Amino acid sequence: MFMVDILMCLHTDQHFKLLFTFTLSLVYLYYDMKFTLQKESNTLSARAGLIQTDHGQIETPIFMPVGTHATVKALSNDELKTAKAQIILGNTYHLYLRPGMEVMKGAGGLHQFMNWDKPILTDSGGFQVFSLAHLRKIEGDITTFRSHIDGSLHQFSPEVSMEIQRTLGSDIVMVFDECTPYPCDYEYAKNSLAVTHRWEKKSKDYLRSKDPMWDHTQALFAIVQGSVYEDLRLESVKFLTDEGFDGYAIGGLAVGEPKQMMYDLTQSVCDALPKDKPRYLMGVGKPEDIIHSIARGVDMMDCVLPTRNARNGSVYTWDGKINIKNQQYRNDFTPLDPTCDCYACKNHTRAYMHHLYRQNEILGMRLNSIHNIHFFIQLTREARKALLEDRFPAFYKDFFDRYRVEEDHGEANAIHRENRRKKFEKK
Amino acid sequence: MFMVDILMCLHTDQHFKLLFTFTLSLVYLYYDMKFTLQKESNTLSARAGLIQTDHGQIETPIFMPVGTHATVKALSNDELKTAKAQIILGNTYHLYLRPGMEVMKGAGGLHQFMNWDKPILTDSGGFQVFSLAHLRKIEGDITTFRSHIDGSLHQFSPEVSMEIQRTLGSDIVMVFDECTPYPCDYEYAKNSLAVTHRWEKKSKDYLRSKDPMWDHTQALFAIVQGSVYEDLRLESVKFLTDEGFDGYAIGGLAVGEPKQMMYDLTQSVCDALPKDKPRYLMGVGKPEDIIHSIARGVDMMDCVLPTRNARNGSVYTWDGKINIKNQQYRNDFTPLDPTCDCYACKNHTRAYMHHLYRQNEILGMRLNSIHNIHFFIQLTREARKALLEDRFPAFYKDFFDRYRVEEDHGEANAIHRENRRKKFEKK
Repeated sequence: MFMVDILMCLHTDQHFKLLFTFTLSLVYLYYDMKFTLQKESNTLSARAGLIQTDHGQIETPIFMPVGTHATVKALSNDELKTAKAQIILGNTYHLYLRPGMEVMKGAGGLHQFMNWDKPILTDSGGFQVFSLAHLRKIEGDITTFRSHIDGSLHQFSPEVSMEIQRTLGSDIVMVFDECTPYPCDYEYAKNSLAVTHRWEKKSKDYLRSKDPMWDHTQALFAIVQGSVYEDLRLESVKFLTDEGFDGYAIGGLAVGEPKQMMYDLTQSVCDALPKDKPRYLMGVGKPEDIIHSIARGVDMMDCVLPTRNARNGSVYTWDGKINIKNQQYRNDFTPLDPTCDCYACKNHTRAYMHHLYRQNEILGMRLNSIHNIHFFIQLTREARKALLEDRFPAFYKDFFDRYRVEEDHGEANAIHRENRRKKFEKK
Repeated sequence: MFMVDILMCLHTDQHFKLLFTFTLSLVYLYYDMKFTLQKESNTLSARAGLIQTDHGQIETPIFMPVGTHATVKALSNDELKTAKAQIILGNTYHLYLRPGMEVMKGAGGLHQFMNWDKPILTDSGGFQVFSLAHLRKIEGDITTFRSHIDGSLHQFSPEVSMEIQRTLGSDIVMVFDECTPYPCDYEYAKNSLAVTHRWEKKSKDYLRSKDPMWDHTQALFAIVQGSVYEDLRLESVKFLTDEGFDGYAIGGLAVGEPKQMMYDLTQSVCDALPKDKPRYLMGVGKPEDIIHSIARGVDMMDCVLPTRNARNGSVYTWDGKINIKNQQYRNDFTPLDPTCDCYACKNHTRAYMHHLYRQNEILGMRLNSIHNIHFFIQLTREARKALLEDRFPAFYKDFFDRYRVEEDHGEANAIHRENRRKKFEKK
């Protein structure tokens, strides 16, 4: 009756405006990113699902290419779509520094700026502030840092990160967190987790107190932290699921801990997470890690590996990684992978790609990138297909029977990196 | 009767083989690259024509993108075709050094190696030997030089250049010549021309004594030299047309001489050349040079400018060259050229391209290259259209009324370059 009373006092065009605002409010009020669990493996924890966003549907498990500076390096949007990319990442820290939020507002958000009409997930900037930026200092909820580009001084907080991601207009927003390094002692991990949880709650409170800046809704994912300590990880799951988010990411893994530790923690966390929300393992990874993670219940993964390695000449096949710069490909007039239907494999030979690599030609980096992104996405698509057809365990076995897993030097590198960082910070 | 006698003695499959060989011989014997003159301007020397090759037709006037290392830098074959590229260049000197002739033979020639099914023109390697290679020494018809990549010792001659181009399998082969520098005194130019003419005849004798290596015919173009001296240029035209070639190129221009001198010499040479053969002005040039050259009777042009400048952020429009790195484009959400239908202009804004340039992103170089190649080819296509529609003088006038011609620093640079070269050679 109240509504009718109001409507009675208004002109027709005012009616329309009011009705529009009211409908929009309802959409926001009842908005909940829709995740449909389609299938679970009988013997492994793997699952297939569907995520619905305002920019379209995402079929999980899914590999998400990384578009740090509003471009997935070396690829066009058309090439990403041909590779069946369903969602890409943008980096909050990088995009905040360049092109900056003034340009992003002028453009109408990241989708418009880069002309990408499918879903986008943005990270919170936390990981980059703690790994890339210089002279960072945490005081309360404010992290002060210097840009790695020009040394200029900036401050991030949960609210700032949310405001940047509101401006970017990503379909999936990540909470602001501290990503613990490896190795990390228990005390540090515990204290860091408390801070992260406070920041995650603040992220949610801020984002949900505002309307989206552009004409589509934004889901918010929490990040489970706790370093390599299972009790902290489970405590984190408890806190975050009690709080309630649209999805749950696992952060602070794939930072150099032994592979088995990463797989086991992924399994524990996934087992504790609710089944009706998507799970995202951040920064993973190599093809073997992707399959291991899917088998443990992960739905979404991202990594710079396929594009970064492509520019170094490393390309992936179902038999393992090969390096196109090797002399053996000089006179090899077969495609990279005869079973692959990417543009590079359908049109060019290993000999040509070897030549382009040696000449440092842009087309060489492009062809390698096209192939690798195609391969990583195909990997998750095939896993999904196997799940839907009730044959995931066989797919898993076949993959590891064939794929030549590389030796892992991650831990040694991480320890070296962490020692150097500590030494640097003492100065 | 002789043929019948032979055929009577053979089995059926032998008949077929013989018939095939005989037909092929006839094709080679009577082979003459077909050039059809379609239209001439009434008031200017411009003309429209058609060149028929075994890899398809070329509509002239035409701009030919340069694919030095078996790739037009930053572009895929599909992108070249979308830009309506009808013929591309390959560089004999570069391809001889890398990937080398063993790989090229294994691939089945340059078309196969790079999977380009349209016409290819290869230069003779002469220009690069004299401009890029180190420690070159001419003894008789043998030019000895050191590779600019690894210092290894190599020898070129008219015969070697022809053999390399046979292996590359280009549709249009260029004779081996010496490209005189600018400035160049009369005596040097006269002596060089004598050597060049001897080499051109040797090139023809060698190439025509052999069957093509692959299953298509190769046309041979002569190169008119004579530096900036009109009498030498006309002497060169006389010698070469008496000798008879499939087409005639003008070499040794666009090397730093004043622009008016280049235009005047182009006019004199074109006026003296036969009308029924295509004319190719080598290494030209800027958009204004292209239009000036077409107006003087040139049919084909090539230049690295559109791709090289693209990588430096310079992009071309009908109003002139702009540099996308300029701050003024930071918040400019319009396309580079609203009237252009290339992928970059149809999909992205100046602000996005400015951002990609600042970030040194490969996609930035790609979009700029796509646009520039599209623009240069469109330039010649529009000129051709105007010719066919009997309105070339109006097109010419409209172009220069609108296009902001840059100041020319070519001569000063060339004099500086030549002085440095002479100083280096004295050491």
